[in-house]
Amino acid sequence: MSVVHRTIERAPLAVVDALAECGVATVHEAMGRIGLMQSYMRPIWRGARVAGTAVTVSIPPADNWMIHVAVEQCREGDILVVSPTSICDAGYFGELLATSLKVRGVRGLVIDAGVRDIAELEAMGFPVWSRFISAQGTVKATIGSVNVPIVCAGVSIAPGDVIIADDDGVMVVPKADADIALQTSKARLDKERQSRERLAAGELGLDIYKMRETLAAKGLTYID
Amino acid sequence: MSVVHRTIERAPLAVVDALAECGVATVHEAMGRIGLMQSYMRPIWRGARVAGTAVTVSIPPADNWMIHVAVEQCREGDILVVSPTSICDAGYFGELLATSLKVRGVRGLVIDAGVRDIAELEAMGFPVWSRFISAQGTVKATIGSVNVPIVCAGVSIAPGDVIIADDDGVMVVPKADADIALQTSKARLDKERQSRERLAAGELGLDIYKMRETLAAKGLTYID
Amino acid sequence: MSVVHRTIERAPLAVVDALAECGVATVHEAMGRIGLMQSYMRPIWRGARVAGTAVTVSIPPADNWMIHVAVEQCREGDILVVSPTSICDAGYFGELLATSLKVRGVRGLVIDAGVRDIAELEAMGFPVWSRFISAQGTVKATIGSVNVPIVCAGVSIAPGDVIIADDDGVMVVPKADADIALQTSKARLDKERQSRERLAAGELGLDIYKMRETLAAKGLTYID
Amino acid sequence: MSVVHRTIERAPLAVVDALAECGVATVHEAMGRIGLMQSYMRPIWRGARVAGTAVTVSIPPADNWMIHVAVEQCREGDILVVSPTSICDAGYFGELLATSLKVRGVRGLVIDAGVRDIAELEAMGFPVWSRFISAQGTVKATIGSVNVPIVCAGVSIAPGDVIIADDDGVMVVPKADADIALQTSKARLDKERQSRERLAAGELGLDIYKMRETLAAKGLTYID
Amino acid sequence: MSVVHRTIERAPLAVVDALAECGVATVHEAMGRIGLMQSYMRPIWRGARVAGTAVTVSIPPADNWMIHVAVEQCREGDILVVSPTSICDAGYFGELLATSLKVRGVRGLVIDAGVRDIAELEAMGFPVWSRFISAQGTVKATIGSVNVPIVCAGVSIAPGDVIIADDDGVMVVPKADADIALQTSKARLDKERQSRERLAAGELGLDIYKMRETLAAKGLTYID
Amino acid sequence: MSVVHRTIERAPLAVVDALAECGVATVHEAMGRIGLMQSYMRPIWRGARVAGTAVTVSIPPADNWMIHVAVEQCREGDILVVSPTSICDAGYFGELLATSLKVRGVRGLVIDAGVRDIAELEAMGFPVWSRFISAQGTVKATIGSVNVPIVCAGVSIAPGDVIIADDDGVMVVPKADADIALQTSKARLDKERQSRERLAAGELGLDIYKMRETLAAKGLTYID
Repeated sequence: MSVVHRTIERAPLAVVDALAECGVATVHEAMGRIGLMQSYMRPIWRGARVAGTAVTVSIPPADNWMIHVAVEQCREGDILVVSPTSICDAGYFGELLATSLKVRGVRGLVIDAGVRDIAELEAMGFPVWSRFISAQGTVKATIGSVNVPIVCAGVSIAPGDVIIADDDGVMVVPKADADIALQTSKARLDKERQSRERLAAGELGLDIYKMRETLAAKGLTYID
Repeated sequence: MSVVHRTIERAPLAVVDALAECGVATVHEAMGRIGLMQSYMRPIWRGARVAGTAVTVSIPPADNWMIHVAVEQCREGDILVVSPTSICDAGYFGELLATSLKVRGVRGLVIDAGVRDIAELEAMGFPVWSRFISAQGTVKATIGSVNVPIVCAGVSIAPGDVIIADDDGVMVVPKADADIALQTSKARLDKERQSRERLAAGELGLDIYKMRETLAAKGLTYID
Repeated sequence: MSVVHRTIERAPLAVVDALAECGVATVHEAMGRIGLMQSYMRPIWRGARVAGTAVTVSIPPADNWMIHVAVEQCREGDILVVSPTSICDAGYFGELLATSLKVRGVRGLVIDAGVRDIAELEAMGFPVWSRFISAQGTVKATIGSVNVPIVCAGVSIAPGDVIIADDDGVMVVPKADADIALQTSKARLDKERQSRERLAAGELGLDIYKMRETLAAKGLTYID
Repeated sequence: MSVVHRTIERAPLAVVDALAECGVATVHEAMGRIGLMQSYMRPIWRGARVAGTAVTVSIPPADNWMIHVAVEQCREGDILVVSPTSICDAGYFGELLATSLKVRGVRGLVIDAGVRDIAELEAMGFPVWSRFISAQGTVKATIGSVNVPIVCAGVSIAPGDVIIADDDGVMVVPKADADIALQTSKARLDKERQSRERLAAGELGLDIYKMRETLAAKGLTYID
Repeated sequence: MSVVHRTIERAPLAVVDALAECGVATVHEAMGRIGLMQSYMRPIWRGARVAGTAVTVSIPPADNWMIHVAVEQCREGDILVVSPTSICDAGYFGELLATSLKVRGVRGLVIDAGVRDIAELEAMGFPVWSRFISAQGTVKATIGSVNVPIVCAGVSIAPGDVIIADDDGVMVVPKADADIALQTSKARLDKERQSRERLAAGELGLDIYKMRETLAAKGLTYID
Repeated sequence: MSVVHRTIERAPLAVVDALAECGVATVHEAMGRIGLMQSYMRPIWRGARVAGTAVTVSIPPADNWMIHVAVEQCREGDILVVSPTSICDAGYFGELLATSLKVRGVRGLVIDAGVRDIAELEAMGFPVWSRFISAQGTVKATIGSVNVPIVCAGVSIAPGDVIIADDDGVMVVPKADADIALQTSKARLDKERQSRERLAAGELGLDIYKMRETLAAKGLTYID
């Protein structure tokens, strides 16, 4: 059955915005290394770092009809997350849909498929993470669902979850874990700041992280 | 038999130039979604949008001899299109060949294989769409053909056909279809311009394209 | 057995620096087309052209412990070369390790696996050539070896060998061959400079390289 | 946190066994075309068609420790489903682990990674669907979780869900949907049996499925 | 425009049948090494060697409606050749369609996409060469064309051309070249038979093909 | 420079034969998990398990001339190992070359490229491990080297080294390590035999390998 859930619970934007500043690699570590999409998900242009609340779309292969339906469900602070039921490298999304999303305050698109108009999308400053880039058009023939739980690029996403995306990739933080993720990420950033200063001063990770003994115990042998 | 056709009929440059301005995604749609090369064909640098008339090269794997032969057949407004008879990721083309092509007014290279000297090619402003980037050299041992019909990255190309290429990919328009392609593309661009304005003003595609009824007829259900 | 060789013989930096200026495609040709890594090794940001002496790391999949060990073995002019024993797309290396390497004068990283913090690495100007980009973290559980002979992305590398890397890819020159590689590369560059001038003046490669007779002998047929 | 859930609710084996007989393609259609793993999941030997209840394992890359832990949680009628947190093509599983699983009545293994000893596994008649085949060993250094919800090869799986696997691939049926899946699959099989007889007698799908009018309405044109 | 050509000129079956006996590798060599589909096209079961006349289908991604249309256009001795306009790994074809084709004397299917029911297809002895194996279903929403020129897996095919397929892959012989292809293939087989006997008797290819002098001229050096 | 080394030191066949019986997975473990080729190297037919001494061939892409040269250097107990200098999926090897190798007592072919005539090779019982299967022919235009050190599918191989290959993949044992490899492999097989019996009797690996304490120490938590 094809459904559109109009009402979803979203993670609070204050937390979402703070998570964006932490970046994917940090939050991913802070969360115990879970929630990262497959590494084939790449930004179509470099330099964006965003976070938003997921509006999810389950979509048939090579058919972008449901993206039009999903636009109406988006609001300020959302990120649209689209996953086809079968791999297809067609270009489901371009500049016109981005225009519509931008008007509504949507922060970006994450799609386990192809997009097109990438020069225009970069010019608009609309960030997209996708699996393919392709000018190949899609049809509007078969319906799917909006705001249902989906799997996108290897991770489970519920509507309203936090999506974080930057040049390193894309990850999801379940909305129930957003607060703890932020707290742990900040702690991690503090620790990294200290490490960075010591490393920049020439200290070795071997000493800072006290690895020498464990390495020796494992049998590591130095030869001059 | 290895042949070089010296005389080919080319699509008129006036139409070719106008098609370049339309871009790959638009012309591809206007043509009924045919003629697009596989999505693995990517620009070695971003931002170019060109169109030209195809000089085609059928070439053995890892052997670039025939590209030297093809240079002489190129003239102002052409795009060189190279397709090996077997997949090989070697670098068939670099800055010296590009120098030669540039002198003759060639607008770019499309190759279903690898290229090298990509920093130099970008500095020269010579656009290339390729399947691979590789410094691996090739030999000059076996001959092929120039200006014969070829298949490149999944599409059939005849000498003199229109090649259009930008950040979204590469496509071919058979020379006999160039006029109609331009006409339909322009109509499409007009229509998109109108849609863009309405979308930018906050109207929804669901309403502009009158999708609500058809979606309901398909059984799409909204849940609050 | 896991070992760290503290003393390695390095190619002389004067030769290394001169090889950097020649670039990968030229040196690769000069060396008889050997030593090039697989074409999936790509720079995480464009525009760097470096050469250095290899500090090699053989590492278990998804475990970056030995990179910390290797940092201590690096010095001015080195390039760190990391090869896992099994394919894994995790991100073994990020900004903190780069900070450490930069302090020691290391010129870059070459890794047949994934890296992360790529926006930060680009901002630092630290060049990396990798197979994957991924925020996925790694563990510190199993040891490997530093400064042993390795195979990385399809080529054999001994500690102290010359690594050259630019936008075209990555190659190795055995340290014993560094002098002859430089000499041959310079000769090649001279020859290319002359060809470039003649080609830019409109002469054809067919004539400069005297190919017409051989092509005719092979049976190439021109049709008007 | 790494946990092992000892108590899980399993779909009833009577339904599971009946679903096995229906096969993946039929149940997948009956379920509305959801729940199918990516097509890179292939049997290591051809001819098995099994169904079982999922014991799930979330595992670090290149580390098979948790498979040993999971064995103890398996019982008659289960299928072990293993998903690493990062792509790695090592061989996590071989004949010894299969011996252990077979003793416990486990019906097969589904793993989004590599396996080895495949000649021995085929000789034992132990069915495996995997992404890779590789003799590369793994370590036992880092823990994960057993019987937690996982994503494997693109689909969400909860412990106790029905896994169906044959030469066409692998799919999951949520345990709550097992009854309805069976019922719909049987209806579909009945319908297919009728179609098969008519098709074998020479009738055309165009007529049986009454497609001619719709095709004509779409504008399909026949040319003699 | 979507069209179905009811009348096509087919290569004569006597020649087609004789080409089947020659096999793909031989005919491909005899034709000057052209016409071979990409190597990703693999048989779903091993051991078939067939040839037939092409009924071509151009089809949208993930939509198999036009295969039903194509069945009616097939007759004794044909091979159905299906190419989607965009890459999609869904399973477009299964046992029911094969039943229909078999009744009409169709010799096999070649499809640049996925198929399912492969155990059943093998049991029926219906040969299929495909790019993917997948249970994923397709829709019947968008039309395409039958018996138009297509590109399938990298080669151009016209309706009625000869398709040859075996464990080595799939190739096309344009119908106008069928006679000469057969003649050249037979000559090649005769020559190979003689070579095989001499090689089996211990003679070396180096001597039979008189390679020693040319190799020496190229500079090959033997070291004891 | 292209050279053929006529005299190489080979590992003794008694050891080689004993290693074949151990199989790839066992020897790979016994050697400390090194020496395994990439997992894309697959047998063209299932069921062979062989070992032999390497005759190595470094070859240009899409050119099989040097395989003819290498045949003469092969003798009873050898395995031919072929590595092109650039990736190319053409079919370098077929039934005629296999006939020649078989006469000389060669036990198989390992090639990081394509082969053809695979039905005939299977019928002859000649085992081949390759990266691709393709009917695409190659030329005889450019020379390479025989019995030089090469890298094949990610591992370094010296002439005379032991190659072991079965359904799990292909590995190399340097000839100097052959004795110790055999000794360690046999010890490992003994140990595995004991484990197998205990596992078949229902004991758990958790107990046999005494893992429970370490797992608890790592923090593994059981939940009922």
